[in-house]
Amino acid sequence: MKVNKKRALSLLTGAVLGLGMASSAYSQASLEDVMKARGLTQKDLLAAAKTYTPTGARDEYLAFSSGGQSGHVIVYGIPSMRILKYIGVFTPEPWQGYGFDDESKAVLAQGQIDGKDIKYGDTHHPAFSETDGEYNGRYLFINDKANPRIAVIDLHDFETKQIVVNPFFKSAHGGAFVTPNTEYVMDAAQYAAPFEKGFVPLEEFNDKYRGGLTYWKFNDKVGRLEPENSFTFEMPPYSQDLSDAGKGPSEGWGFTNSFCSERYVGGIERGRPPFEAGCSQKDTDFMHVTNWKKAAELVAAGKVKKVNGQYLITMEQAVKEGIFFLIPEPKSPHGVDVSPDGTHIIVSGKLDSHAWVYSWEKIQKAIADKKFEGKDPYGVPIIAMKDALRTQVQVGLGPLHTQYDSKECVVYTSIYVDSMVTKWDYCEGKVLDQLHIHYNIGHLVAMEGDSASPDGKYLVSLNKLAIDRFNPVGPLHPQNHQLIDISGDKMQLLYDMPLPLGEPHYVVAIKADKLKPVVRYKSGWNSRADKRSEFRTRAGREKTVREGNRVDVYGTVIRSHITPEIIEVEEGDTVSLHFTNLERAQDETHGFAMYGQNVNLSIEPGKTVSATFKAEKAGVYPYYCTEFCSALHLEMQGYLLVKPKGYKAKAGKASEGTKYTKADFDKQVKTNVDTQAVIDSVVAFITSHNYKDFKTVVDLVTDATDQLGFAAEAKKKSEGFAAKGDYQNATLWAGQHWQYQVKTADLGLRAKTHLEENGAKKVK
Amino acid sequence: MKVNKKRALSLLTGAVLGLGMASSAYSQASLEDVMKARGLTQKDLLAAAKTYTPTGARDEYLAFSSGGQSGHVIVYGIPSMRILKYIGVFTPEPWQGYGFDDESKAVLAQGQIDGKDIKYGDTHHPAFSETDGEYNGRYLFINDKANPRIAVIDLHDFETKQIVVNPFFKSAHGGAFVTPNTEYVMDAAQYAAPFEKGFVPLEEFNDKYRGGLTYWKFNDKVGRLEPENSFTFEMPPYSQDLSDAGKGPSEGWGFTNSFCSERYVGGIERGRPPFEAGCSQKDTDFMHVTNWKKAAELVAAGKVKKVNGQYLITMEQAVKEGIFFLIPEPKSPHGVDVSPDGTHIIVSGKLDSHAWVYSWEKIQKAIADKKFEGKDPYGVPIIAMKDALRTQVQVGLGPLHTQYDSKECVVYTSIYVDSMVTKWDYCEGKVLDQLHIHYNIGHLVAMEGDSASPDGKYLVSLNKLAIDRFNPVGPLHPQNHQLIDISGDKMQLLYDMPLPLGEPHYVVAIKADKLKPVVRYKSGWNSRADKRSEFRTRAGREKTVREGNRVDVYGTVIRSHITPEIIEVEEGDTVSLHFTNLERAQDETHGFAMYGQNVNLSIEPGKTVSATFKAEKAGVYPYYCTEFCSALHLEMQGYLLVKPKGYKAKAGKASEGTKYTKADFDKQVKTNVDTQAVIDSVVAFITSHNYKDFKTVVDLVTDATDQLGFAAEAKKKSEGFAAKGDYQNATLWAGQHWQYQVKTADLGLRAKTHLEENGAKKVK
Repeated sequence: MKVNKKRALSLLTGAVLGLGMASSAYSQASLEDVMKARGLTQKDLLAAAKTYTPTGARDEYLAFSSGGQSGHVIVYGIPSMRILKYIGVFTPEPWQGYGFDDESKAVLAQGQIDGKDIKYGDTHHPAFSETDGEYNGRYLFINDKANPRIAVIDLHDFETKQIVVNPFFKSAHGGAFVTPNTEYVMDAAQYAAPFEKGFVPLEEFNDKYRGGLTYWKFNDKVGRLEPENSFTFEMPPYSQDLSDAGKGPSEGWGFTNSFCSERYVGGIERGRPPFEAGCSQKDTDFMHVTNWKKAAELVAAGKVKKVNGQYLITMEQAVKEGIFFLIPEPKSPHGVDVSPDGTHIIVSGKLDSHAWVYSWEKIQKAIADKKFEGKDPYGVPIIAMKDALRTQVQVGLGPLHTQYDSKECVVYTSIYVDSMVTKWDYCEGKVLDQLHIHYNIGHLVAMEGDSASPDGKYLVSLNKLAIDRFNPVGPLHPQNHQLIDISGDKMQLLYDMPLPLGEPHYVVAIKADKLKPVVRYKSGWNSRADKRSEFRTRAGREKTVREGNRVDVYGTVIRSHITPEIIEVEEGDTVSLHFTNLERAQDETHGFAMYGQNVNLSIEPGKTVSATFKAEKAGVYPYYCTEFCSALHLEMQGYLLVKPKGYKAKAGKASEGTKYTKADFDKQVKTNVDTQAVIDSVVAFITSHNYKDFKTVVDLVTDATDQLGFAAEAKKKSEGFAAKGDYQNATLWAGQHWQYQVKTADLGLRAKTHLEENGAKKVK
Repeated sequence: MKVNKKRALSLLTGAVLGLGMASSAYSQASLEDVMKARGLTQKDLLAAAKTYTPTGARDEYLAFSSGGQSGHVIVYGIPSMRILKYIGVFTPEPWQGYGFDDESKAVLAQGQIDGKDIKYGDTHHPAFSETDGEYNGRYLFINDKANPRIAVIDLHDFETKQIVVNPFFKSAHGGAFVTPNTEYVMDAAQYAAPFEKGFVPLEEFNDKYRGGLTYWKFNDKVGRLEPENSFTFEMPPYSQDLSDAGKGPSEGWGFTNSFCSERYVGGIERGRPPFEAGCSQKDTDFMHVTNWKKAAELVAAGKVKKVNGQYLITMEQAVKEGIFFLIPEPKSPHGVDVSPDGTHIIVSGKLDSHAWVYSWEKIQKAIADKKFEGKDPYGVPIIAMKDALRTQVQVGLGPLHTQYDSKECVVYTSIYVDSMVTKWDYCEGKVLDQLHIHYNIGHLVAMEGDSASPDGKYLVSLNKLAIDRFNPVGPLHPQNHQLIDISGDKMQLLYDMPLPLGEPHYVVAIKADKLKPVVRYKSGWNSRADKRSEFRTRAGREKTVREGNRVDVYGTVIRSHITPEIIEVEEGDTVSLHFTNLERAQDETHGFAMYGQNVNLSIEPGKTVSATFKAEKAGVYPYYCTEFCSALHLEMQGYLLVKPKGYKAKAGKASEGTKYTKADFDKQVKTNVDTQAVIDSVVAFITSHNYKDFKTVVDLVTDATDQLGFAAEAKKKSEGFAAKGDYQNATLWAGQHWQYQVKTADLGLRAKTHLEENGAKKVK
């Protein structure tokens, strides 16, 4: 009954118990039994086969969804519809350490409004960076509607790098949309407001409240927006909505729709009809057409003035320069979608039953001919509907957003009130198919459906209500994204996917193999600033530096210890912890949490992060690793000791909880020798096979070799103490030697199993 | 080409275009084609059939997972493995308005430490409330390891209602675990620390640092923990870990394991071996056995003193009263699991290869006979291993946590280092099956596997690493929960599920039909305090009340307007917004966000929430509904106007953006008459069928009837203005009438489709 370390480790060889390591037995139940028991039809089974993704298999597309009011971006795979990641963007998120480490706090601080930290965002429309109108897989942009901001996410590590605040708007629904080579990111205002700070009465709405459209300049080389080189079109107070950039023949132009061009101001509490009545009275609103190429030239030529620190193109200037026009569009629209070849623009209004197809050729001609049906009250020329429209197609009640198929002329429009998707041909002007969804679809997304060459294949319907689709989870329901197969003539519903956090508005989907994210950072990396951290620390160089009341701790984390394990400061000190993750192994993230101080870090391999706080109260503050990283993860711990000011330590040394003798040391050494034999046998197995043909195994072997290196150091220390007769420290270091051996064995076993399961061959 | 409202609405009848409303066509691709194209095996197809859940179908079990450092709880369905909800617990979460409305801020404020808001939690172990050892589906408890706290989630609405802070501990890994009738919630300390606030040097670790176990008293009637009636066992500084409560013969007792009973204090930076070495040196740690029934009697008898405001049972008292014992257990264990019948306890150590099965009968006898092998340094009696243990079974290297099957004596143990699940028989002491997982499993969960009558069927392996299982998403990987079919003799891997946010530690799974969550609140409900809100507001009773510098706005939200639409305050005012959602319809949540003020609310049907902020700067602050609730959701907007102090309005009234004439009014009225005809035809369809047999339809009809009621009011107003010759207001109110009609039609159409798709019958 006695515990025996050797016995404990004997299993390392995998030969014990006479059982195969993996169960290869087949289930007893037949497919038919399962289908019957679960009430599945043949159609369900086909849908299951089209979506089920076995362990280790990859999804073909990655969808990047706005997280709505969660302030995050949601990444999921298609067709498996499994959510892979929530990326913190406008809202602090502790799992990622986002808004907890100093580096990401600095990103969030860029998004302050009137000097105030904004603690959430209402994310709406994500957009990929593009090259020649094709998604290039490098960056993702997303807006915050509530607090007009745009964020930049770097897709090489899926982290938010920058937040910019619009200097004019007080809301911004209409972002982000990019120009074909990511020269600019478009972002339109929503609710008209004065461009200046300060109070302006609503009675002056027509005169002093304004809408607008900002073209944020993007610097592709450094991956950051440049507010100082961005410009904004002043626009009438028409509630500008979504945008799209022209491409091909329409490249250089932008299209932005709007609602409430009635400029109605509600006031139920004053006995007036509500906004919803006054903002939907006219049959049409206005599509806004802007020429960003020419605007950029004006800026470059020094012809545009800066207001609030950013270039502002007034309506007067825009009209004078001929770079801003209006075209009637169906009322209360949502979505203005340029065709892949840039020749057409589709808009539909949520209170109409038609999708309207505009011809860029006709629009261009009207502009060239200066053929306008008049001007709006702000002097902006209006192109007549007949001079811009190609056709109107009856698609269903409440059409909203259109996505393009890989097949020429074929599009999909979400139909809000009728709760369906209509597939139609915008060249022929005819409906091809309709599919009911549950319930009340908002936006939809086809694969690369916003790009110059859409992929078709799948469509996701972003439903605004779930109602009865899922197990009930209280009054607040998840959203429901429904996956639809569009590879055939008829659409086929494949999958209902609940969204567990946030109300997504818009999704973009990219071919997964366009993304090449890294799995580790360069050693000592400040990921938010994209450079080596000034606080990076190498193994063995950990130190604590005091300067006045400031204490800087340069520490490291690695399986399974934090260095330093004891940090001593004084009450009132400002403490800055800087931790570098020394791991090179994939997925070996360490966390760092400390009692009562809001210190909570996520430290991925190679990363250096900092946490600065004031040690306000004397006390004992345990800290530990929060990511289960190894067998002794729970023992990856330490203490911050905050001493009262002027505290004098008493003389005397504490006795250790447990004392060790030469017998303990010898026992541990014996265990280690036995363990090494096991490791050697695993190593022999690996090296006798073609392990270099398996990238996963090569990575594991590299990691295991590192761990064995550490083991050697611990062994040396242990032997040093033993030589001096200090069996306390000799035993403890021998124990540490064994810990490294266990980590090595863990890795070796994983490598061995991988080789066995993937048909590795014996080499001579 | 002219827009025609009648034409727009003609689709309401669903008869246009000659197309069926739903596509019933079958996909072109055969099952075999799909399997070949996607590389699926027959085994994959079977797994797909066992997990795929078609639209509208329900999951059999709901899993409640800790969200790790995200501070949330994650709810997902089994076997579909779809995540249904993230519940905000210790971390503010804007989608739910959690930490943004005053009501939930008050819940989070309960969790302050030293007067400081704690902005995250490291959630570890969820536990359901129980009746007679069975999950009763009423409450869920979860701990925060980093900042020792316990939260209470009410499963009638899936909201966090209470947070309590441990008055003694500085960390608490070992919660939450409940006694068989939820009398108490167990929560053990992890990293030993002084029970008092203030600094105590590590040199006094043995004498002044302490571990402990708190039994939080739960009041089942009000659904809240009672700190004043809770008690804590003082324990040696042994890093107490997880617990489980006895049941059946062992009811009244609790079991808590531990690690680092060496009481080792590291200090790498001082040249000492790290914690991981010193904390894993001994072959055994201690299982702690406590008698909570007797402890509760001592408390009731007034024999226990209060410290830090809570009852503290000192080690001296516990030993004297015979309610605290130690038993050797395998070193560095994680998980102490009482068998469903309460007769056995299984513990395993992560550096061992055995699971140890303890007999409660033997333990009880040793206690009764006062048969101890000695005392620990703190005087706590130690029961000898041989007097407690039934057997040790070799299950694999790094056994961690055990769950019970529905079959007698059958258990599943997670094997960390070997990355597998071992199925074994603890009565016979033999291994039955082993299944590899990817990679490095931590905890596992079987269906109701912690209860007095486990269900078996499915097992979920909570893997700590994902590595190469999913599409790469940067250095920070998702977690991987693998679903395993345990209904047969051999375990079968069914599904890999990425966890996109947070690192879950522990999961509990309950039969879904035990949960009866509501879909709406009683009207005007403060959900966090579980009572009618003092700020509830009924339709038509909206008002703004000023008292000194405080402005209280009593408002409402409903499709598609916010009342009031204009709020005027002065710079420096403290503004309290109180909104009640007037909706009764399921899933008709409205959001409320305001520019630059961190005001962001989620208002589910019936709920009243408040947001209090200081209007610091004069300006214009748009606000709007953030949940896409209806076709005119974007028009659900308003303005907060913050006027400079002493601002005097100028004379004069603004002109409206658009003017309406009698012709506009007549046109709108005609549209409304036509629309009403469409509604009538839909109503005729519904009432001519057995719609009352369909709960969904009855709900929709109730909602539609409400909307029609509002329509009648708007119509009356419209006609009143027309009678006075005020065609501006007459037209606008007629437009509002139409808006209500559109909402009615939306609901009617949904009801009609539901009847058609679900085989409703015509009634005579």
